[in-house]
Amino acid sequence: MKQDDIAWLQCISCHTTYSLNYKGYVCEKCGDLLDIVLDLERVKVRDWQVFRERPRGVWRYHELIPVDPSRRVTLNEGGTPLIECKKLSRWAGLKKLYIKFEGVNPTGSFKDRGMTVAVTKALELGVKGVICASTGNTAASLAAYAARASLPCITVIPEGAALGKVFQAIAHGAVLIKVKGSFDQALRIVFSKAEELGYYILNSVNAWRIEGQKTLGYEVAEEVSGEYNIFIPVGNCGNIAAVWKGLTELKNLGLVEHTPRMIGVQAEGASPFAKMVEEGWETLRPVDNPQTIASAIRIGRPVNWKKALRAVKESRGDAIVVSDKEILEAQTAIARLEGLGVEPASAASVAGVRKAVEKGVVDPDEATVCICTGHLLKDLNSELFKPKALIEIEPNEEELVRGIISMVL
Amino acid sequence: MKQDDIAWLQCISCHTTYSLNYKGYVCEKCGDLLDIVLDLERVKVRDWQVFRERPRGVWRYHELIPVDPSRRVTLNEGGTPLIECKKLSRWAGLKKLYIKFEGVNPTGSFKDRGMTVAVTKALELGVKGVICASTGNTAASLAAYAARASLPCITVIPEGAALGKVFQAIAHGAVLIKVKGSFDQALRIVFSKAEELGYYILNSVNAWRIEGQKTLGYEVAEEVSGEYNIFIPVGNCGNIAAVWKGLTELKNLGLVEHTPRMIGVQAEGASPFAKMVEEGWETLRPVDNPQTIASAIRIGRPVNWKKALRAVKESRGDAIVVSDKEILEAQTAIARLEGLGVEPASAASVAGVRKAVEKGVVDPDEATVCICTGHLLKDLNSELFKPKALIEIEPNEEELVRGIISMVL
Repeated sequence: MKQDDIAWLQCISCHTTYSLNYKGYVCEKCGDLLDIVLDLERVKVRDWQVFRERPRGVWRYHELIPVDPSRRVTLNEGGTPLIECKKLSRWAGLKKLYIKFEGVNPTGSFKDRGMTVAVTKALELGVKGVICASTGNTAASLAAYAARASLPCITVIPEGAALGKVFQAIAHGAVLIKVKGSFDQALRIVFSKAEELGYYILNSVNAWRIEGQKTLGYEVAEEVSGEYNIFIPVGNCGNIAAVWKGLTELKNLGLVEHTPRMIGVQAEGASPFAKMVEEGWETLRPVDNPQTIASAIRIGRPVNWKKALRAVKESRGDAIVVSDKEILEAQTAIARLEGLGVEPASAASVAGVRKAVEKGVVDPDEATVCICTGHLLKDLNSELFKPKALIEIEPNEEELVRGIISMVL
Repeated sequence: MKQDDIAWLQCISCHTTYSLNYKGYVCEKCGDLLDIVLDLERVKVRDWQVFRERPRGVWRYHELIPVDPSRRVTLNEGGTPLIECKKLSRWAGLKKLYIKFEGVNPTGSFKDRGMTVAVTKALELGVKGVICASTGNTAASLAAYAARASLPCITVIPEGAALGKVFQAIAHGAVLIKVKGSFDQALRIVFSKAEELGYYILNSVNAWRIEGQKTLGYEVAEEVSGEYNIFIPVGNCGNIAAVWKGLTELKNLGLVEHTPRMIGVQAEGASPFAKMVEEGWETLRPVDNPQTIASAIRIGRPVNWKKALRAVKESRGDAIVVSDKEILEAQTAIARLEGLGVEPASAASVAGVRKAVEKGVVDPDEATVCICTGHLLKDLNSELFKPKALIEIEPNEEELVRGIISMVL
């Protein structure tokens, strides 16, 4: 069956449809975002069995991803663990807390789920190269998948991107354009130059990214049953929309009975989406100079806010704001209570749970899944952690060790 | 069945046996290393089916790991992907090359396989805390698993350890002792203080580490068939011994027909093991001041050299020396041809393959598996990579971009 028979692109506002080979990013008529819509009646999946016979990961679900799986550009992304965290759940005041640990993806973040699909699509479309603006994780992931696909890659990086992520983009051979300005300015450069270059834009405005990231929702649903909540960091608003898209598809296919509440978590200094939800506004009011230690969600004009708002509304979800201090406390708790190393943006989800329990937003008896989006090693900001104890000695001072250790333990 | 009925500790030289609850690290009689020996007749595994019904990872094989799996301390380690690398195989002059990508373990290196088992054992033994000397990866992994197990942890770090790894140990709450000296001096401090403190030493002299790492061999054997070779970086000599132990057990159980040749790769400035193999010496001559950019294998007195020598001999394997320049070329090739980010020590395996093909040490028609032990993000040495192209601009200089890009692409 041709992919176009089972899926198409569709404007989220005026519902104009486009074939899967449409190279644009937004609706030609009204300029709004596009969804990829699957004709679930024609998708030949009626139970979990077909998936379970395959290895875990994004491509386990290929019937629900309308690109040609035989040409996939993959580094074995997805299939990340769902880890029960008993000590952390007590810390947050909950009965049962799981971390979905996306840091073990190939480049260390959930972005790989979107890139495996979107770069596969880029090859199908026959583009000359790929380009993105990025605070880091997107650039690292795109550079890796472009390398695997032998596609030229340009990454446009604003000020303040995390060290490890820029290092990855360089290592994987991307051309690096550093802009002495914000993410929004970097994105403007991308949009002004991509067409002229014949390069395909792989920011999260690209619906194929969302199409890969939705598998995060599939995986959670495969592993958790009954009533539960999902807490997820929100920056550009793409991932919360993607996870909800995945869950909705499963519900419509009859593969799950319950869908969870989607609760988005933003950092205080970069929280236009949470503000909108809280105030009941119907339109996002951008934040001009977003500030937070969690660089991966330091975004003031989230592109996908409409899709994210739909996710929160349809799931009877919510949005929570946490301070940088609360994020760092959560990051330390995750690392020291459970042995999981996550970057600050990831820890926002756990900080959000604790706050939501305090505020009575969620029932502490319901299971909660926190999406932790990227690895600790992504953001080596040495000011983040105080060592529990640090002792510096000369090799011949070993006799001191016993005494010092007994003081600090 | 009690674990002691199916397994015991045994000296590799004088064959004295000890119960599984022996707390020492070496033989009391002759001081040599200990193996964990399984009575394979009594292990109730006759085919792969029992494993394949379980999720991938270290604990999939729990019948072959003589600790109580119900008390396991796990972060979902192992089950890493085996990735076919077509472009890289051409680069190395081979027909078929796979990378076993250990960088996607929870703390970003293969050490997690050993720690999940050894920290589980530490709990069984009822120790007060855990301690290790480490150039970085071991410390990062131990700190994470100790945190998960709620065990106090001390890491003793020599000069020159990689940034990311030390950051991890701090994040996971280990007490950090920085020694202004070498790894060997750090290890001496560990041995001089551990007993007095009641702390359990988790360096690779500890046979339980090897017992977890052997699952790397199980996984490769589950996925590759026919004749093949394994190339593996060699520092302290533990991992090559562990992988071979796993493969030998499978052979003795009748679960595999072929075992591969084990080819250890060392860096020029830290190659006592390769030198010994090359010269046919029966004893290792330590290197006093080991030097290589690949910090994870910068070790002059490898503890497990006897076990490693056994692996090379029994498998009709070999050892190869590569220069730092060759390591960096391989690291770049892996990152830019295949999109896989590995640390320098990991790239030694791929550099070794290329050299072995040149020297006629391996048949280029045979499949080759390269063990890539740790993630790129572990060792952010910005001198490692030159950017393919780096352009710095002010936001209002976007008009320049087109011209510059056309020059560099």
